[in-house]
Amino acid sequence: MEQFTEMVLARLNCKDERTKAILTKLITHLHDFIRDVEPTEEEWFKAIDFLTRTGKTCTDKRQEFILLSDVLGVSMLVDSINHRNNNGATESTVTGPFHASAPPMEMGSMIAKGPELERGEATLVRGKISDINGNPIPDAIIDVWQSDDIGYYDVQEMGQPEVNLRGIFKTNPDGKFWFKTIKPAAYPVPTDGPVGEVLRAAGRHAMRPAHIHFMIMVPGYQRLITHLFVKGDEYLNSDAVFGVKDSLILEFKLNNSASDAKALGFQSPFYEVEYDFILNKIN
Amino acid sequence: MEQFTEMVLARLNCKDERTKAILTKLITHLHDFIRDVEPTEEEWFKAIDFLTRTGKTCTDKRQEFILLSDVLGVSMLVDSINHRNNNGATESTVTGPFHASAPPMEMGSMIAKGPELERGEATLVRGKISDINGNPIPDAIIDVWQSDDIGYYDVQEMGQPEVNLRGIFKTNPDGKFWFKTIKPAAYPVPTDGPVGEVLRAAGRHAMRPAHIHFMIMVPGYQRLITHLFVKGDEYLNSDAVFGVKDSLILEFKLNNSASDAKALGFQSPFYEVEYDFILNKIN
Repeated sequence: MEQFTEMVLARLNCKDERTKAILTKLITHLHDFIRDVEPTEEEWFKAIDFLTRTGKTCTDKRQEFILLSDVLGVSMLVDSINHRNNNGATESTVTGPFHASAPPMEMGSMIAKGPELERGEATLVRGKISDINGNPIPDAIIDVWQSDDIGYYDVQEMGQPEVNLRGIFKTNPDGKFWFKTIKPAAYPVPTDGPVGEVLRAAGRHAMRPAHIHFMIMVPGYQRLITHLFVKGDEYLNSDAVFGVKDSLILEFKLNNSASDAKALGFQSPFYEVEYDFILNKIN
Repeated sequence: MEQFTEMVLARLNCKDERTKAILTKLITHLHDFIRDVEPTEEEWFKAIDFLTRTGKTCTDKRQEFILLSDVLGVSMLVDSINHRNNNGATESTVTGPFHASAPPMEMGSMIAKGPELERGEATLVRGKISDINGNPIPDAIIDVWQSDDIGYYDVQEMGQPEVNLRGIFKTNPDGKFWFKTIKPAAYPVPTDGPVGEVLRAAGRHAMRPAHIHFMIMVPGYQRLITHLFVKGDEYLNSDAVFGVKDSLILEFKLNNSASDAKALGFQSPFYEVEYDFILNKIN
């Protein structure tokens, strides 16, 4: 049966070297997997049906194949391969399936606009963007998105306004930025589709520890996609998508100053979190 | 990064041993593939998009993931794993994406009912079903399906009546069967979807050599899914789905007897093909 794989590979007649390498490795590893598992015809058909349903679950607002890649550890593996030489820059993590276009906002804006604003814990997020030599980067684009206080994103349509808990900010001349939000919550990845079947078959929970997503873009610098995680979350050691890195776990500190709260328009006390992002130049 | 894969595997907590084996091997081989290819983030996203579109191409009448499995050689590999100990029984091959429910027919019926009946070359198919000891099997269910004379199946909706070139027959007490049809043609697998992109990237043609599909079912015997291929077809050595086995290539012999033709209601000359199928008992 090794000969069979060689026969399939011998048919490749790719114009492009990279395409040839990818198809060769795909066929080789896929056949190795099949020879290792020795699926019955019924198991093979279950796999066909699973992949078909995964495709059909994808919509404008839901990407079940990205979620599958996430829960199998593929997304984080691709991430680590593409960010091996970090030079001290901020570590990256998965994009996840919930990024969507967000409105540009004035510095300091509150990104929570739904019922979570009443229920949630007010939080000030601030920081700085700089290069690996410590030089601040002005006009850096900072795209942020997060779950509400009970673990849902706006696109999941669980009672939030459209385009909520998202915003795009631009750093000041000193590289600094700040915005207001509510503290994010841990949440399960969607389990009502095929990926939920995988998690149940694997005997794994679906929870992700609480976090805020950041995508930071500056011309001439590598795009940084990462999260800031909330220290103390019970799922930090068992993230369903393997996205946690120690350097990205931050304390959300309670600020008891009534005057600080008043200046921000918050009830007292409120939470504060601060992080300085470091970007790598494009090589 | 090997440690990362171990960490993902350590999370498995399957109730069922087979599920654990499959998920362990899936994650291991998938991560090996990723480490071997080192995809860029753009390439990873192209793969996500490809799988999504493959799922969305599937309908009641089209199974693009089966076709993908076929053109990557996976289907034939699964077939050979499941039919290793053949005991001299007829060799199997791929089901393909065009099986559909067919009507029971009287022995000797003509399965072609569309315009191909006028254009095509009349063919008599006959044979016998027996066990590996040569005992004939009566009442065997024989489900046949094939392309028309220009290479299309009814479900592709290219001018044929609904449910055409398909039929279900039952063997006589002596294990014999026969039916009338037109000679099938070589044809391309569908290339207007994602699988077409793979074939073009691989620099491979999409053609399958001409064949008639058989699915033979008898209680107590292993279901046999196979083809009979037309000897002399130019694509026998380069079938797009790797389905050809030498033992399944048969001569479609020209019969010049005017009286034989008349007895069958054919124009003279016509083609004849004969094959005796041998089934394995269920172990």
